[in-house]
This record gives sequence, C-alpha cells and structure tokens, in this order.
Amino acid sequence: MRAEVITIGTELLHGYVTNRNFETIARELSRVGVEVVFHTTVGDDSERMADSFRAAVHRADVVVATGGLGPTPDDITRKTIATVFRRRLVLDETVLDQIRGRFRSRGIEMPALNESQALIPRGARVIENLRGTAPGLHFSHQDTEIFVLPGVASEAEQMLTQYVVPCLKAHPQALRIGQRVVRTIGLPESAVAERLLGFEAEEPEVRLAYLPHTSGVALTLTAASRDAAVVQALLGRAEARVVERLGSHVYGGEADTLSAVVGRLLSERGLTLATAESLSGGSIGAAVTATPGSSRYFLGGVVAYADDAKEALLGVDGRTLRRHGAVSAEVAERMAAGARSRLSADIGLSATGIAGPEGGTAEKPVGLVFLGLATEEGVRTSRHVFGGSRGEVVARTASYALDLVRRHLLSEASWSGPSSHS
Amino acid sequence: MRAEVITIGTELLHGYVTNRNFETIARELSRVGVEVVFHTTVGDDSERMADSFRAAVHRADVVVATGGLGPTPDDITRKTIATVFRRRLVLDETVLDQIRGRFRSRGIEMPALNESQALIPRGARVIENLRGTAPGLHFSHQDTEIFVLPGVASEAEQMLTQYVVPCLKAHPQALRIGQRVVRTIGLPESAVAERLLGFEAEEPEVRLAYLPHTSGVALTLTAASRDAAVVQALLGRAEARVVERLGSHVYGGEADTLSAVVGRLLSERGLTLATAESLSGGSIGAAVTATPGSSRYFLGGVVAYADDAKEALLGVDGRTLRRHGAVSAEVAERMAAGARSRLSADIGLSATGIAGPEGGTAEKPVGLVFLGLATEEGVRTSRHVFGGSRGEVVARTASYALDLVRRHLLSEASWSGPSSHS
Repeated sequence: MRAEVITIGTELLHGYVTNRNFETIARELSRVGVEVVFHTTVGDDSERMADSFRAAVHRADVVVATGGLGPTPDDITRKTIATVFRRRLVLDETVLDQIRGRFRSRGIEMPALNESQALIPRGARVIENLRGTAPGLHFSHQDTEIFVLPGVASEAEQMLTQYVVPCLKAHPQALRIGQRVVRTIGLPESAVAERLLGFEAEEPEVRLAYLPHTSGVALTLTAASRDAAVVQALLGRAEARVVERLGSHVYGGEADTLSAVVGRLLSERGLTLATAESLSGGSIGAAVTATPGSSRYFLGGVVAYADDAKEALLGVDGRTLRRHGAVSAEVAERMAAGARSRLSADIGLSATGIAGPEGGTAEKPVGLVFLGLATEEGVRTSRHVFGGSRGEVVARTASYALDLVRRHLLSEASWSGPSSHS
Repeated sequence: MRAEVITIGTELLHGYVTNRNFETIARELSRVGVEVVFHTTVGDDSERMADSFRAAVHRADVVVATGGLGPTPDDITRKTIATVFRRRLVLDETVLDQIRGRFRSRGIEMPALNESQALIPRGARVIENLRGTAPGLHFSHQDTEIFVLPGVASEAEQMLTQYVVPCLKAHPQALRIGQRVVRTIGLPESAVAERLLGFEAEEPEVRLAYLPHTSGVALTLTAASRDAAVVQALLGRAEARVVERLGSHVYGGEADTLSAVVGRLLSERGLTLATAESLSGGSIGAAVTATPGSSRYFLGGVVAYADDAKEALLGVDGRTLRRHGAVSAEVAERMAAGARSRLSADIGLSATGIAGPEGGTAEKPVGLVFLGLATEEGVRTSRHVFGGSRGEVVARTASYALDLVRRHLLSEASWSGPSSHS
C-alpha cells in the first residue's frame, strides 16, 4: 500500500517551523508496511488544498492529512474536503456535546467559534480527540482511505496510534516492510557505491539507499512482502552481502553512533582515553562525551590551539613545532603521546590540521589533517585531506579520529598512506 | 511570485531524517519576496519525480528542487529532468574537468561513477558547486524558472545564496520583502514573549516570529511592500522596539553567532581566552573555534572529565573536590582560575555540571551547571539548571558560557542568583 501525507498550514511553508507531524506519521505508517511515496505541504488556501487532495487520492491508497481542523477562520480543511469529495457538512450533535463537555470540564462556556468543529462531512467516521476539541475524520473515496487529523502534534499522534495504525493493520492489502541501516566510515559515497556495484542485480528485492554524513555514509536496505519472515530473510542476506563488501568500514547499524561504538569497545577492554586537539577545538572530546556514561573511559584532554599550549600542556617541544610546523605528522605524534602521558590514559588521540577557510597553502591545503594515536605499543599517525566547510572539516576530523580508536581496538588499524574524502 | 519546493530522496519519506534543506530554501525565498505555496517530497523514483516536476511547473513561477544529483545509481534527478522537459543530456567537458580537478586536488583519481555528474540537460545553465562535485542546474520551462540543487545541505545553501537569490532578486516581478533577525540569550521563550506583549498592536505591519534554539531565542521581523524604503523604515522601528524591551539579552542580528560576537569583543580588546570543561567535554572550545580566525584570541583549554584530570591539568585541589563535589561553584572557580594560569590567558572560562540522563540527585539534579569566569579582577561563578536532553544541556552550557564572556567584556556581567531555563 502506498501513502501520501499532506501537512496543512501556511506557517509550515515559511521555513521557521519544523514539521514534526510528518516524521511521526511516516514512521508509524512504514512500521505497518505502508510506504510513504509523497509528502505535500500546502497552506491554508482552499483551492491549493483541494488540488493537493485531488492529486493524493489519485495516486495513493492511503492519504493522511493533518492541520486546519481548528475553530478559527483560517481552518478550512473541513470545508475543502466537503467540496472536493462532494460530502455535505452535517452538524454532529454527539461531537458537539463532547466539545461542550471538554470546555465545561475546564469551567468555561464553549466559544461559539468551536461549533464549526462539530461539522462532519456526511458519511465520514469521527476519530475521537482525547486531548483537544478537533475531532479527526476517516472516510474512503474510490479505493483510497483518507484520514484527517488535527495539526496539534500530541492530538495527531494519539489518533495515529489509537485509530489509524490499527485500521491499516487490519487492511487486507497490508504489507510487511522491513528496514536495516548499515553505517560506514572511511570511504566517500562514490567509493562505497563502487564496492557495491552489482548489488541491485544480486538482490533485486532489496532497495539500497545512500545517506552521506560527516560521520560517513549510511546505507539503508528496505524490503517488502506479505510475509514478515521473507522480509527478514531478504534483509539478512542483503546486509551480510553489504558487510562483506565493505569490511571494516562498517561500524554499526541503525541505532549505533561512532561515539557509542568506541565507548563500548573501550568499556569492554577496560581502557581509558585522553585527547589532544588543535584544529578541532574540543570537538573530539564533545563527540566522545555525547555518549552517556562516557566518564567510565574518557579521562579528558587538552585543547592546544596555540603553539605555546602545545608546549606547555602536552610537552610538544618547540624544535619539532618550528621544524615541521604545527600541522605535521610529527606534532600529531607528540600531541597524542603527550595526552596519553599527562592524563595517564591507555590511549592518547590527537588531531592537528587546517580547518579553513583561511590558512591553507599549496603544500598544506585547507582540510589537511594529521591524526595521532598513542598506545603502549607506540605512536602512529595518519594523514587526511577533508573537503567541505570549516564545520565539516572539523566534524570529519572528529569522526575519523574516533574511527582510528575503533580500528585500533579491533586490531585492524589501517595505516595506509594519504587518504582524502569529500 | 509563487514557488514550489521539491525535496528529493526516499530517505526523506521514512521519517528518520529531518529535511533541513526545505527550511533554508523557504527562508531565503521569502526574503526576496517569493511566496512558497507548495512543498513536495518525493522518493528516488523517476515516474513519481516526473509527476512532481510536472505539477510544480504547472502551478508555480519558481521551482527549487534539491537532491538526487549525486554519482550513485539512485541519483536520477538529472535523467528525470531530461525526460520531463525533453532536454537531452550532454556531457559538459568543463564540468567534467572541474570534478576531476576536485578529486585531483585531494590526491585521488576520479571514480568512473562521478562522470555522470557532468551530464547536463541541453540548454541548462550550470550552477558551480564550490563545495562538492555535483553541479546545480538552472533552466526555464514556459514561464517557470527551475533551479535544481544538490541534496547536501552546505552545497545547496551555497548555490542558493550565491546564485538563486541574486537571480530572483533581479526578476521584474519581485516584491520587496525585508527581514531582520534579533538574537537573544538568557531568557526562555515565554519570558521573551512577555516582554514583547503588545508588540503586534504597536507594529501591525510587521510579522514577529519566535525561533527557540539552544543558543537562545531568535526573533524574526518581516515586512513587505513594493517600496524597499518603506520596508526598511518599518523594520528599523520594529527592531528598535524589540531591542529596547530586551536590553542586554540581545547579542546580535541575523549573521551573528555568540561565538563570533565574543571573538570580535576579545579581538577588539586584545584579550586571550582559555577554557576548562568538564560536563561539556570540549563543546565550549568547539563553539569558540567555530569562528574562523579564533586562533587570534583562543589559546586552548583543558577537558577535565575525570577528577584526576581536574587536579593534574588545572590544579584543582583534591580537598575542594572532596568537600564540595566536582559539580560545585568552588570547583568551577578553581577550574577557571587553573585554565587562566596554566595557559597564561587573560580570561579563564569553566563549566562543570551534570549532563544526564543519569547521575542526578535531589540536591544536584540533571542539568545543574556551574560556570566560572576568571579575570585579573578575580573569579566569579554562576549557577544554572538547564532542561532538555544530554545534548541540549551541553549545548546550553556552551552558549551560556560564551554569554558570560560577552557580558563581562561589555562590563555588565549579571551575576544574579540561581537561574533556570528549559
């Protein structure tokens, strides 16, 4: 079954309000095997809203709309539906009593404006609103099921879980849809795609989508069937194939973050971590501590932005700084070792580089970053050239730094030569 | 002029990714007097995407689409456009050279897949991508201007501000819409609203919108007219009124970040800053260094997550830690002083607290944060209770810490008693 979601409200088109209702509806629908194929947002304009409803019933089996059911003059969803689907609005006395009762229970008289909320398109079922005054509506048109919910998030959510979802689950056409996420780091999107060439032909029943982040590329695998076991089998095989092709670049699944994965590995091995950051200004520490409970393995670190700070707080000697420059493998090495010894940690992790937008040269361009990892076995460094804005260079630095720790802990540190990612 | 925005990507329909591009596009368009009347999201499906483009050119004067310009097989926007608008795809050698050059500058060979990004619908203008490989496209169909931008947020934004907006501004039908943003910190949204009671009646021609962030509440003032001078006069008066009511809680305008404002004040006064962070794990340093050129005034800092690190790197004595606990005004004071002296900075800034979700007690709840500011005049601290998730507590800590520096530099430090914000 395919769905279209229509979110109604001029304020949603200005770009200052994030539309949370859509996300809730989309997640709930995909959970019961209904695939959302269109999302339309339209303002409080009856002609354009009518247009959206007409297009939606034409192309979807399920339409879920939210908004415009309030009592004020700009709430015109009921009227528009009546026009589009040729259903006369009828005053529903039961609904009117419920609305009156809701006001009475708060000790106030129902304002006259609210009476309009009891106008129901003829033949539509009323979805009770346990949290507010606007009732929801459910009716069908040709072969399409149409649900109209209030714009208030908590009211829409209640109707969704208590009415819409059970209704769709019971639908004879209901499909099971499953999804898995495979998170990778260390390869640009096009290189991930190259390793997966041919996947579509090998797994024609599984849809593969790419989602690039500063923390790597996430892959989404989706499969659908009337049989939930078939979905799981398809996804299991497809996931195994992806993991095999991408090897250690895979760091986790849907709920995993690099920070949490590294935290788990450190905790399991009883090891502690300390950081020494230059260009990232504290972002590696911030990423590590984004995981609750990080105080078990993260001791702290030094943000050595100025050269003097690198000398005073990390013991990087002035000669190394002068000879190789602050952005060098040698300084990354000394910083990592300094963090490890000054904080008495098992692992020292460092980053030095040029975040931009200024400060790059032909030899040392913006985005050049050296990472260092100090352990009891010694210190190793890696060199990267990251693309993007200042913020993206820093975000990638933090992700790749965490990945170094992950690879070290998995004993498969890959210290290959230059690597670059956009 | 009326616009439709089309955001492309199956992942946007699953409800797990928030569509930030739409918000950016909507705000930029409304700024140049273009009203967004429809927003459609469609997956990576050529037939449905074609449907969306056909509907959009039919009902809008301007269409801005994002997504599906990448190099992988699920990126089909170029092909779909070619089909819908009957424009053959032609390999653009200049674009191909640019893409190759982008890879070469990072020392790697262009993967063969990226070649598809140089296929341009015949007659379309290429919008240069300064941050990635996918070029944008601009062409017109009948009377509609169509802009197609990459899905990567920073790339779309760059093309929007550097190409689309100037293009639309020059359009003969353009209405003048003006907008000003007033950024505040230190008051929750409802307190800001209370101070602005009556504003709507006093300035009926100016629309006021609230946008709460972890870095405070931003206010947007919008006015429209065919006469640009009228717009500016309306906005100037409204802005003055807002600033008068909110006083020193206002830290800047649209383009300002707290980080940049603090950086400017430090630079002007020739002062240097060092940080000492506990719960924020490096986020204050990351916020300070988000501003280009921050190395002029930011020396560095210490992330003292473990108590031992607070002793070893900042000289916080063990007795103070044991007597008052790590989350206390006393420890915040010693941390700030320690950062100032160890890094030989003019100003030391510290934060210690409980980010949660675990670790709170009745006496010291989750969200309790002490900030410290050490200067040549001595050390002062402030106490806060921040609401929200772990990430939000940390983000608020970083913002309020920067605000302490700002207020100190403006010589109006307000060291009032306990303050709490949700």
